[in-house]
Amino acid sequence: MASEKPLVAVTCTAPVNIAVIKYWGKRDEELILPINSSLSVTLHQDQLKTTTTAVISKDFTEDQIWLNGQKEDVGQPRIQACLREIRRLARKRRSTDDKDPPPLSLSYKVHVASVNNFPTAAGLASSAAGYACLAYALAQVYGVESDLSEVARQGSGSACRSLYGGFVEWQMGERADGKDSIARQVAPELHWPELRVLILVVSTEKKPTGSTAGMQTSVETSPLLKFRAEAVVPARMAEMTRCVKERDFQGFGQLTMKDSNQFHAICLDTFPPISYLNDISRRIIHLVNCFNTHHGQTKVAYTFDAGPNAVIFTLDNTVAEFVAAVRHSFPPESNGDKFLKGLPVRPALLSDELKAALGMDPTPGGIKYIIATQVGPGPQILEDPHAHLLGPDGLPKPAA
Amino acid sequence: MASEKPLVAVTCTAPVNIAVIKYWGKRDEELILPINSSLSVTLHQDQLKTTTTAVISKDFTEDQIWLNGQKEDVGQPRIQACLREIRRLARKRRSTDDKDPPPLSLSYKVHVASVNNFPTAAGLASSAAGYACLAYALAQVYGVESDLSEVARQGSGSACRSLYGGFVEWQMGERADGKDSIARQVAPELHWPELRVLILVVSTEKKPTGSTAGMQTSVETSPLLKFRAEAVVPARMAEMTRCVKERDFQGFGQLTMKDSNQFHAICLDTFPPISYLNDISRRIIHLVNCFNTHHGQTKVAYTFDAGPNAVIFTLDNTVAEFVAAVRHSFPPESNGDKFLKGLPVRPALLSDELKAALGMDPTPGGIKYIIATQVGPGPQILEDPHAHLLGPDGLPKPAA
Repeated sequence: MASEKPLVAVTCTAPVNIAVIKYWGKRDEELILPINSSLSVTLHQDQLKTTTTAVISKDFTEDQIWLNGQKEDVGQPRIQACLREIRRLARKRRSTDDKDPPPLSLSYKVHVASVNNFPTAAGLASSAAGYACLAYALAQVYGVESDLSEVARQGSGSACRSLYGGFVEWQMGERADGKDSIARQVAPELHWPELRVLILVVSTEKKPTGSTAGMQTSVETSPLLKFRAEAVVPARMAEMTRCVKERDFQGFGQLTMKDSNQFHAICLDTFPPISYLNDISRRIIHLVNCFNTHHGQTKVAYTFDAGPNAVIFTLDNTVAEFVAAVRHSFPPESNGDKFLKGLPVRPALLSDELKAALGMDPTPGGIKYIIATQVGPGPQILEDPHAHLLGPDGLPKPAA
Repeated sequence: MASEKPLVAVTCTAPVNIAVIKYWGKRDEELILPINSSLSVTLHQDQLKTTTTAVISKDFTEDQIWLNGQKEDVGQPRIQACLREIRRLARKRRSTDDKDPPPLSLSYKVHVASVNNFPTAAGLASSAAGYACLAYALAQVYGVESDLSEVARQGSGSACRSLYGGFVEWQMGERADGKDSIARQVAPELHWPELRVLILVVSTEKKPTGSTAGMQTSVETSPLLKFRAEAVVPARMAEMTRCVKERDFQGFGQLTMKDSNQFHAICLDTFPPISYLNDISRRIIHLVNCFNTHHGQTKVAYTFDAGPNAVIFTLDNTVAEFVAAVRHSFPPESNGDKFLKGLPVRPALLSDELKAALGMDPTPGGIKYIIATQVGPGPQILEDPHAHLLGPDGLPKPAA
């Protein structure tokens, strides 16, 4: 890839990931080192992905970047950190592996274009997929083959978990330089084929507190945060790893819910308090609890990130009934044909017992739509040259 | 009082208290012993009080009780615990102080009637005032003069704090028998005359989780609760006591808000999670933060108990402006003349700068009404015999 061609272009895709043991709080703001390890599920790119094209050329006079068709400031510290890291790794590789002088391409400027296949309005954290894809694409054009955790992490902490498919842990590490703060796959994409993921996109008007500012305030003001990081999370990481490896849905689901609850508890213990959950989120929590209580076991589990949307984990044999329960409690306000996106879900009837167990007044329009997806693979390289978002001139294609 | 008269009748009143360092979690469910100390402000009985009449007579054949005009089951364990404790204390007093045999009145049955001057629909915890008043009235008729913490506490934990006026701490104690788990006045009623209290009664349809069941689930499931009780609360008790003694509103207000936040964080860390705050509560929190930020200091502070209603602390020179800010953010839906109850509040105009600083869309009807009150005294004995809720026959008067 990184030979002395006049122009190298690569297009990659990267997935969104959803943490089931949450990352909240940095011990180093510069290097983006966390105060606790975290564990996530990589979502399938058929439903949610970022696509990024990187092109390097000796003719480019400056680094440039376009996000969703808009030219962005390439001087943003986090983009700069990724560029600096990837070039450092490329130089290091050349100097240690080949004993040759670094290739000219290392001095080439890069043009980057990136698009998401999901609306940012969905409130889904796009930065993890975005920075994972940026790191992966840059690695291809500059010829870096080592672990990219450090590169992606310095764009957005949780981005390092989007470098792998399946189930991924981000080990917090101990070193001050962050070399051991890396992502590792716990189980591969096809390890638990029955697992399904439903994203319930909640109607909301207001933009919540950003996670970067939020976790910084938590570190500074929450008396409970340090205790969580030091005394609660290590055992939960071990337990979650066991649940994933043994495909123990009861344990996986309960711990997922508990860790989501604790993350939002820490947000509330922050001063001023941070509230990502709204009344609809709380109704979803209630719905999940009623559904599980009715069945006498944990058949569905919720988790919430830095916003009101719920991510639901369940198994394939429960999806239809749970979606019917969601439709019952949150009747779609539009004509309903676009309420369900992603994987097909067959219609199901709710028993009267279950309807009674859900026991709350319906909230029409509370949920805008559902995206049904599953566990997916890590970043991919698209071989089709038509996939490039940048033309041979290094500028966005008209279509992009 | 407890001489051998054929009939003894006493009518007392007792106040509501609002905790600024929260009680949440029992170490002994039977004796109602808490896992941490707490500190509260006693509210003035001109606005909120319970009135209780207790009558003993040799002619009564059984204990009986009426609450808000309705006959209730006197066999309820907590009422029984109060009756048992007060009779034990009365016997003990006779045996240790007088060396005389216990008076006959100790064997008399009691009739009790109790009313609140505030609607239970207001969602204000009436059990603290109720059990404090019960303990106080029973003490009068049975001639008990010792500390009543044990009696009130076994009715409802926080009731022991309603036995005193002003600022009151409930020391958790260490003993297994609970003898040292008692309420003590930290500062008297008139210590901080500028302090004002506004109760913002929030519109809500649903009945929240009861606090007894809620705190039990928290003790069983929240990993953060024990840490709060052991590692956070002791220093907060000391700091809050200092703030009260020095009338340091900045410190008092900030710590009040932080401890309310942490209590609700613990509720969220419970499984299944408990949510007492709703979207209106969160908007009130936001309003308070914006108001303080605009002024560059903590001029108002919120605290929330086991429901969505906010209790606001502020000083007399800030009440009018803050009430105007509340009216601006939550325009009254009814004609507005009953929006403000209790102490008079003069109208005030909001500056355009403050309106801009509040920066959120108004939520009409989000707050049903405001009760303006202040710090008040402890339980009182009403000398006027017309105040009795029970007639000479020991039955509720027709008016009651």
